[in-house]
Amino acid sequence: MRIGILGTGTVGRTLGARLVQLGHEVVLGARQATNEAARQWASELGERAAAGTFADAAAHGEVVVNATAGVASVAALQAAGADRLDGKVLVDVANPLDSSAGMPPTLSILNTDSLGEAIQRQFPAARVVKALNTINANVMVDPARVPGEHTVFVAGNDPAAKSVVVGILRELGWPASSVIDLGDITAARGLEMYLALWIRLMLNFGTADFNIKVVRP
Amino acid sequence: MRIGILGTGTVGRTLGARLVQLGHEVVLGARQATNEAARQWASELGERAAAGTFADAAAHGEVVVNATAGVASVAALQAAGADRLDGKVLVDVANPLDSSAGMPPTLSILNTDSLGEAIQRQFPAARVVKALNTINANVMVDPARVPGEHTVFVAGNDPAAKSVVVGILRELGWPASSVIDLGDITAARGLEMYLALWIRLMLNFGTADFNIKVVRP
Repeated sequence: MRIGILGTGTVGRTLGARLVQLGHEVVLGARQATNEAARQWASELGERAAAGTFADAAAHGEVVVNATAGVASVAALQAAGADRLDGKVLVDVANPLDSSAGMPPTLSILNTDSLGEAIQRQFPAARVVKALNTINANVMVDPARVPGEHTVFVAGNDPAAKSVVVGILRELGWPASSVIDLGDITAARGLEMYLALWIRLMLNFGTADFNIKVVRP
Repeated sequence: MRIGILGTGTVGRTLGARLVQLGHEVVLGARQATNEAARQWASELGERAAAGTFADAAAHGEVVVNATAGVASVAALQAAGADRLDGKVLVDVANPLDSSAGMPPTLSILNTDSLGEAIQRQFPAARVVKALNTINANVMVDPARVPGEHTVFVAGNDPAAKSVVVGILRELGWPASSVIDLGDITAARGLEMYLALWIRLMLNFGTADFNIKVVRP
């Protein structure tokens, strides 16, 4: 599958590298075509990996992943171009974390709105699926780092788009039984607000190698 | 142990009834001494249970539980009287949910503050412990309703107060290994913001019989 990833931070590079290993053709997009992290990333991964701009990545992808910093995501997607996102599955793995006042970060969108919803409103023809934002990058691509079954969530307005994302999750090693479909994109509120608890757990444990499992009878 | 519970809703009555069954002497406190729900509750539970005002419950308890609606909790605690809370373990199981705009409710305090912190600030001599706010009342008092191990959190500034609360959790059936101490009361932010996800899960499942388990290597 052709996948475009926006964002050259740890999440974009880690997710992109694993998707290349799984056989996908991935363009890692940055604000500038000259982004050194993206070029370095591509050079290490062989012919199925390339670096480019946000627009290059969006044009390339049948599936586009937003792995930019949440507070910059809408601007990054605008730079990618709405026309290049039309009709595409847009996986939003970002969180609207604001670290400008130090640790712990706060959320810049919450309670009655979410980044996932803001992106869907701004790009109405994209098929936004919120997923993986509740999990550290290393666990995203290797769920077995955390023992036993644990939960990954998907939320979005387009069931077919969610199926595509669940297929990718399965390839990454997530069992079908660990996926919870929370319904439409408004569920992104709860998924993003959970970050306040996730960050606290991460600071207390001193590691991001953990996840939650939703347990029910 | 003498336990005062503020709030005659499902949480207060369910938690109180179980604590009476476990041998504790419980006063269930309401705004008005004539509260019918509290009187009915006490009449069904025998001599270790009594109904009274918020002040009666607070005066009675070595441990006081805030099980009032979060948006009314500070007023309820003021009615109870700061002097009756001084030095006591104050277990805050409430969430600052605002349902005035319909479902789902939003949080009236969040992000850079929490109800747990607001209560600790307002009643600095009380030993506030945030606990059980992430779990439905029936599961609080019978964790085996949800299969396997799952997590209950405590947070507060006073380690001895947290130990008292963990002792009560153990009596309610929570294994020691399922308790996560998140540190000081600022962790109440994450515990309360998790409610946005909890409510979404509850609406999707059509039941509150679930919980999360934090899984780590």
